[in-house]
Amino acid sequence: MKDRTRDGRRLGTPPARRSPGAGAAGGQVVIYGWHSALAALANPRRQVRKVLATRNAADRLAREAPGLPSGIVEIVDARGLDRAAGPGAVHQGIVLAADPLPEVELDEVEDARLLVVLDQVTDPHNVGAILRSAAAFGADALVTTERHGAAESGVLAKAASGGLEHVPIVRVGNLARALAALGEAGVLRLGLDSENAVPIEAVELGGPVALVLGAEGKGLRRLTREHCDHLVRLDMPGAIRSLNVSNAAAVALYAVTRPRENRADATKPPSHA
Amino acid sequence: MKDRTRDGRRLGTPPARRSPGAGAAGGQVVIYGWHSALAALANPRRQVRKVLATRNAADRLAREAPGLPSGIVEIVDARGLDRAAGPGAVHQGIVLAADPLPEVELDEVEDARLLVVLDQVTDPHNVGAILRSAAAFGADALVTTERHGAAESGVLAKAASGGLEHVPIVRVGNLARALAALGEAGVLRLGLDSENAVPIEAVELGGPVALVLGAEGKGLRRLTREHCDHLVRLDMPGAIRSLNVSNAAAVALYAVTRPRENRADATKPPSHA
Repeated sequence: MKDRTRDGRRLGTPPARRSPGAGAAGGQVVIYGWHSALAALANPRRQVRKVLATRNAADRLAREAPGLPSGIVEIVDARGLDRAAGPGAVHQGIVLAADPLPEVELDEVEDARLLVVLDQVTDPHNVGAILRSAAAFGADALVTTERHGAAESGVLAKAASGGLEHVPIVRVGNLARALAALGEAGVLRLGLDSENAVPIEAVELGGPVALVLGAEGKGLRRLTREHCDHLVRLDMPGAIRSLNVSNAAAVALYAVTRPRENRADATKPPSHA
Repeated sequence: MKDRTRDGRRLGTPPARRSPGAGAAGGQVVIYGWHSALAALANPRRQVRKVLATRNAADRLAREAPGLPSGIVEIVDARGLDRAAGPGAVHQGIVLAADPLPEVELDEVEDARLLVVLDQVTDPHNVGAILRSAAAFGADALVTTERHGAAESGVLAKAASGGLEHVPIVRVGNLARALAALGEAGVLRLGLDSENAVPIEAVELGGPVALVLGAEGKGLRRLTREHCDHLVRLDMPGAIRSLNVSNAAAVALYAVTRPRENRADATKPPSHA
């Protein structure tokens, strides 16, 4: 299946291409904070245009990321970094200007073992934290709606703490169609929902899995739900019945990666009481 | 054991007392957003002094929280709410001014079955999300450091989405001493740490548990680690080795509540394949 970019172009050019607007001032992403900056500099897919750093941060950078192209690092004072990173940004002395990552198409990730799919989750703190957890639990990609999705940004990159550089983001125009394609590719689509859902632990796993999460309050849209193989819930015994969406994603990632690890170990003797 | 409040008073008066500064303008907490506001209004321990709401929100409030004292609700326009909630606050048309919750002492929660303990976690978004997860997984209380802990605030209450009203917060001056007291009370103290740790699933559970989490980057302080029964880790197969602290708390809460439920069900036939 094919999807369209925001400007209507068909996706289909090779993965190494750049996003529209990359390199232009308006299309650049500001990335700040140590983990995010180091991960961006270490990512061969990420074109970093400029590194702004305090003298201290530049010295540390020379030690931790040797071999940066000369002339890319510019020493600025803390106020200059505040200005570059934007109000309230915890930049830790380092701010990068970089191109957005190359676009990734859905059919490039159809052989994934583990996917996270977001249905109109917009908050960059949450999407960033989900990318971080996705990277931690070894997810192969994040699929998100093009409209009402979170764009690559400094806030998202900081919350992802490097996860943005590790987990490709696939932006699709039509999520139901994308889920249909994943289903055809043999991916088990589990939609997190509180109603008409089975416990996530009750689902038989084995092959590739996509965890589908909706925005807080709104949840999954009807067409999204209809394109899931199972609606699953996380049982919570307490007074509150829902988690923050990034917390729900982390627990679900843990829940679907644990049993599969256990299953692989099923022939071994238990390693603990 | 006893601990001291910020102003040096001993904790020890009955739970129904009010916090220092309660009722004074400076001591009030601003709570905004629907979930947080409704939970605060439903909490008998919470003294709400004033409700500011748009006309629409006030109408909805009359339906969803009937029986509010007359005169407590004041209709204001959106700009007045913006001003009351503070810059960037997503107030959803409702802002409360309330007293902080009564202080809770550690020995009031020593018969808890499940505790979350935070070692100098300050970010109110994270602490709020942790309170929400703690409420969802049925934790009995959150124990936090008095210094370098998050104070009750609108940001924290919003992130907690009602969890602030459900999970008592115990603020202690000396966390190592508090952990020692919990140990004496028979609570199994599990410190989340990446080094010298065993998988959290490997720990034999059965009695009450305290999950101890440190701030991101810093982790647990040495004395905190030394007062844990086990250092435990969450195994992550991916490129990133740590989760956002609220995500780690949610996964750990899930991990320690799941096996205990399973164990209780061990005599029943499995309910699913």
